[in-house]
Amino acid sequence: MIVVLKHGVAENKKQQLISWLEKQNLRVNVSEGDYQTVLGLIGNTSHVDTDLVASLAIVDSVKRITEPFKCVNRKFHPEDTVVEARGAKVGSGNFALIAGPCSVESEEQIVEVAKAVKAAGATMLRGGAFKPRTSPYDFQGLKAEGLELLRVAREETGLPIVTEVMGVRDLPQFEDVDVIQIGARNMQNFDLLKEVGRMRRPVLLKRGLANTIKELLMSAEYIMSEGCTEVILCERGIRTFDDYTRNTLDLAVIPLLHELSHLPVIVDPSHATGLARLVPPMALAAAASGADGLIIEVHNDPMSALCDGAQSLRPEEFASLAEKIRAVRKAVAE
Amino acid sequence: MIVVLKHGVAENKKQQLISWLEKQNLRVNVSEGDYQTVLGLIGNTSHVDTDLVASLAIVDSVKRITEPFKCVNRKFHPEDTVVEARGAKVGSGNFALIAGPCSVESEEQIVEVAKAVKAAGATMLRGGAFKPRTSPYDFQGLKAEGLELLRVAREETGLPIVTEVMGVRDLPQFEDVDVIQIGARNMQNFDLLKEVGRMRRPVLLKRGLANTIKELLMSAEYIMSEGCTEVILCERGIRTFDDYTRNTLDLAVIPLLHELSHLPVIVDPSHATGLARLVPPMALAAAASGADGLIIEVHNDPMSALCDGAQSLRPEEFASLAEKIRAVRKAVAE
Amino acid sequence: MIVVLKHGVAENKKQQLISWLEKQNLRVNVSEGDYQTVLGLIGNTSHVDTDLVASLAIVDSVKRITEPFKCVNRKFHPEDTVVEARGAKVGSGNFALIAGPCSVESEEQIVEVAKAVKAAGATMLRGGAFKPRTSPYDFQGLKAEGLELLRVAREETGLPIVTEVMGVRDLPQFEDVDVIQIGARNMQNFDLLKEVGRMRRPVLLKRGLANTIKELLMSAEYIMSEGCTEVILCERGIRTFDDYTRNTLDLAVIPLLHELSHLPVIVDPSHATGLARLVPPMALAAAASGADGLIIEVHNDPMSALCDGAQSLRPEEFASLAEKIRAVRKAVAE
Amino acid sequence: MIVVLKHGVAENKKQQLISWLEKQNLRVNVSEGDYQTVLGLIGNTSHVDTDLVASLAIVDSVKRITEPFKCVNRKFHPEDTVVEARGAKVGSGNFALIAGPCSVESEEQIVEVAKAVKAAGATMLRGGAFKPRTSPYDFQGLKAEGLELLRVAREETGLPIVTEVMGVRDLPQFEDVDVIQIGARNMQNFDLLKEVGRMRRPVLLKRGLANTIKELLMSAEYIMSEGCTEVILCERGIRTFDDYTRNTLDLAVIPLLHELSHLPVIVDPSHATGLARLVPPMALAAAASGADGLIIEVHNDPMSALCDGAQSLRPEEFASLAEKIRAVRKAVAE
Repeated sequence: MIVVLKHGVAENKKQQLISWLEKQNLRVNVSEGDYQTVLGLIGNTSHVDTDLVASLAIVDSVKRITEPFKCVNRKFHPEDTVVEARGAKVGSGNFALIAGPCSVESEEQIVEVAKAVKAAGATMLRGGAFKPRTSPYDFQGLKAEGLELLRVAREETGLPIVTEVMGVRDLPQFEDVDVIQIGARNMQNFDLLKEVGRMRRPVLLKRGLANTIKELLMSAEYIMSEGCTEVILCERGIRTFDDYTRNTLDLAVIPLLHELSHLPVIVDPSHATGLARLVPPMALAAAASGADGLIIEVHNDPMSALCDGAQSLRPEEFASLAEKIRAVRKAVAE
Repeated sequence: MIVVLKHGVAENKKQQLISWLEKQNLRVNVSEGDYQTVLGLIGNTSHVDTDLVASLAIVDSVKRITEPFKCVNRKFHPEDTVVEARGAKVGSGNFALIAGPCSVESEEQIVEVAKAVKAAGATMLRGGAFKPRTSPYDFQGLKAEGLELLRVAREETGLPIVTEVMGVRDLPQFEDVDVIQIGARNMQNFDLLKEVGRMRRPVLLKRGLANTIKELLMSAEYIMSEGCTEVILCERGIRTFDDYTRNTLDLAVIPLLHELSHLPVIVDPSHATGLARLVPPMALAAAASGADGLIIEVHNDPMSALCDGAQSLRPEEFASLAEKIRAVRKAVAE
Repeated sequence: MIVVLKHGVAENKKQQLISWLEKQNLRVNVSEGDYQTVLGLIGNTSHVDTDLVASLAIVDSVKRITEPFKCVNRKFHPEDTVVEARGAKVGSGNFALIAGPCSVESEEQIVEVAKAVKAAGATMLRGGAFKPRTSPYDFQGLKAEGLELLRVAREETGLPIVTEVMGVRDLPQFEDVDVIQIGARNMQNFDLLKEVGRMRRPVLLKRGLANTIKELLMSAEYIMSEGCTEVILCERGIRTFDDYTRNTLDLAVIPLLHELSHLPVIVDPSHATGLARLVPPMALAAAASGADGLIIEVHNDPMSALCDGAQSLRPEEFASLAEKIRAVRKAVAE
Repeated sequence: MIVVLKHGVAENKKQQLISWLEKQNLRVNVSEGDYQTVLGLIGNTSHVDTDLVASLAIVDSVKRITEPFKCVNRKFHPEDTVVEARGAKVGSGNFALIAGPCSVESEEQIVEVAKAVKAAGATMLRGGAFKPRTSPYDFQGLKAEGLELLRVAREETGLPIVTEVMGVRDLPQFEDVDVIQIGARNMQNFDLLKEVGRMRRPVLLKRGLANTIKELLMSAEYIMSEGCTEVILCERGIRTFDDYTRNTLDLAVIPLLHELSHLPVIVDPSHATGLARLVPPMALAAAASGADGLIIEVHNDPMSALCDGAQSLRPEEFASLAEKIRAVRKAVAE
């Protein structure tokens, strides 16, 4: 950790700070420049509160040199992690094509969609049973019944299931869920992260709407520090001033996360854009930029005749997109 | 609800949409303009999925005319709500001055700070027992012991206590907490919101870093729809491109929230700026713009000699600020 | 234009507004709903100040139904525009690969880079002669001499040249520049937009750091309303809270701009990310999502041995990227 | 300047970088930590391209220790600058109350408003003659005629005039304008900044919608580096995800700019919020947080009877606000 002091700091103030740091079992390397003094802290700085130090009147800035994340860090785990759920692999060249409806509505619906997406090449089935809704008056999902219907669809197709958990008290119902999803709004629900980590099952962690890459990795660290070794990171758009799409898809995080971490990184173009007609171009863009997978909404309801612009793709649109995704991945790999 | 169709929409597509809407028990008022067709939906539109309708290929835009929030809505509750905790009132002219340390550290610390802020005019005591931290390796608070120390400080000073809950499983420990705080990262932890609402105690709800005013009100609605009637809204800065302060304090929400809702609105200048020297000007600005209260970090630890720039104010700085806040409130009220 | 009035508006206030609107030669269609009144304005609403109307106490919201842009609007010009400069075409299936150094530094440099990028498949040469710099003390470009060197490189390679203009007084020097670039910081320098439009030469217009798609189109409209017919739109990243890359590349604008406008849309991954190692994945993503071209920084300076992470690619990196771009475009087109 | 190298950098790569830096006449102080190497650059680093260095593969991060702004820097000019225009002072305890209509419309209008705001305590008159408009089809201002009418109003009231310039070619018409305004969209129109600086007249520089504090100061530096000594900085809201107000007013910049610079700082609550009813609370907040002045829109047009919510205040509303501003300033100063 490097602490840069302000210009012209009084000697006694500087000594006070150095003593305080040394009391925390750190060695302090003082480097006096022509204009500024820099303190290099050597030792275990993981318990130093950088915000506190940065806010001291005599301090100009503080910089951590070693990242605060360990389990997720590629430095300590150079090979790509491959997450595996019922034979479906994600990461290190294994591409996950996760598809399914926004909400599980009925057995007929989920089984039909599951069969359709499997035929098109999907490797996992998604579907919401517990739904996070902005309004308490909106449909909150079929809950336990939804989980049961997902199991039926899994039986019928062999596809592993991915579904979101919203609270610690519901976790016992997720014991046989293949990949447990943590939604964007819960990315910093630290209580839930820890409890999910203790289950030691594959987890799909979505980036929050206003969270940095470092915060996403720290949330993955919460999960892994409890013993879980299989976390899939998911970019799903961030909140910006932009008002034409629901969120702004931030694809540069894919190569950046691959540099910093060994975990697989997938993209959710359906929630990022909120518009079905933007899903194919953004899905192809994600594939071209090195994503390890995609999670895409596909439905088969009667509105589909009318709503070719809705967030969800129809099965035939998904099939055609899946083919293009394979072509793009091949083009990029060559 | 108003649905504006795109220019030149085919008649059969339009009829399909109208039938679909009518099947949902809505009356559809069609108004044909020179360039565009507008559908006015009459009836209970609270279950219509606006995102779905907006995404239809033939739809240009959708606008809800009645707000989706009811319990928090000033339209249905014109008088200001006054939240009361052990005699301390917030709202409708009652100003809350909530102060205390970031974390509860020891009995000596919390009691000393409590006495100091009370002497300076504070009406409630804040202090963190359960701490949300970005890193799993950072100090997570004294938890149950911290709550116990807050109770001691309450006994000593008579100040009601405000402290944050992080998960539903901890709630039983909060039964005698005077004001239960929901932190910014949990603003859309809907599971926690509902459970806190069921306790029917005063709640302090912080705005999330990237949440709109409407989303803040909908989260308050989650709490109130479970029976709670006393929610205090709290602006604590939003995340923007700006990099000089930790967050950007958005004071215009104060008059806006007062228009939309009857709930009291307070401001947290300590977390918004992250710098003690910016807390007084921002606290005064909040008071001048009509806030119903402030929540401010005050500490008395040994570092304070050194760290006049830290996020927390020293007791004497808080006392001097409290006096200016009273003067500004008087100036504005005249 | 649709004006939605607030609930319970007094009849005389409503009549005052209607009279005021009618005085502006508009026909007002009043539609009374169960809860709200909607005014439909018929006639030429292009001179109605929507901000003013929206701010009236009795008005809930205002919505323009016809877009305020005409020349750039696909509705009035359904076929794709193809911009052509010295035989190099952009738009409607013609892909522009624009490459070259950030700044023109010397004849040797610009000619060498021009030859290298041409060999790799570039269709145009970029290079800065007038440089917008945040600091007045930073290098401001070779100016007239830089333009002269670009002409030399054009002579040597036949590549049309693309270079930025910073002020109206410099425009006479740009008469034989093939594509005149307007930088992001000048996107709303309306004086410059109009003057460049009068030159009736191809223009490359970059999106501003915090500008919406509509504002970008309105700035293109400024240029086209002066007689210019060839504008290339360019996405180069927006400013967000994100701090790992210089800006956040917003690729969803590509399909969106293609819906709204007939103009070609290209992407600048070099400025968007600020990091050479992110340029290839983002360039491929842009190609996969339907961009009509890319503008990429390529240099050949001695630092290149050292700085494989700089914003600029080395010629051999560009050549390898160009090949992958062609493969991705083929995969997407199939 | 401090350059932090990545962990485990090869010795020859490090030596290459050091030689390259030394060739730029810098002394390089190498400090080897346990985990990382830090290079301290001593000498004139103002010409070092930090972005380039930061992007090198072996570099972790770069930090400038001395700010790149000089003329505007409080370090080199500790006393507050007082800008004076026809006797009206701004800065160092002198509060500027600048008021007037958005656009100059007629002699009657501007003279009437000027008299009204003077009576209420305004110290300067604002009014737009050249108007920056997003659309080329919107009213662009009365231009030369508007300037002439401002001069008439000045003659009638003695109030100095503040008005916006949009391009270098119009500058000769601004020779007797008391304070020349640079709008938010032109904050980085470097050509205009330099030319305005050469006029050596007072300048009011508005912060751009997505510009950092440092960029604002660098733009002021452009003006001052040409000889101008009187620049007033103006916060007018930034662009965020927030959608209830036009922009988000960022009041923490007031104390921050006062720390970094000796220039006066004023606030424009009218453009920041876009809603007249939010102007008084935000104006009072700005005064409470230490602003050196306010620039507020006031109109007297016939719509005012109807539009009590418009962005502009009516003269009587302004008079009442002016009184409260004086009371708040007194309360804060005590």
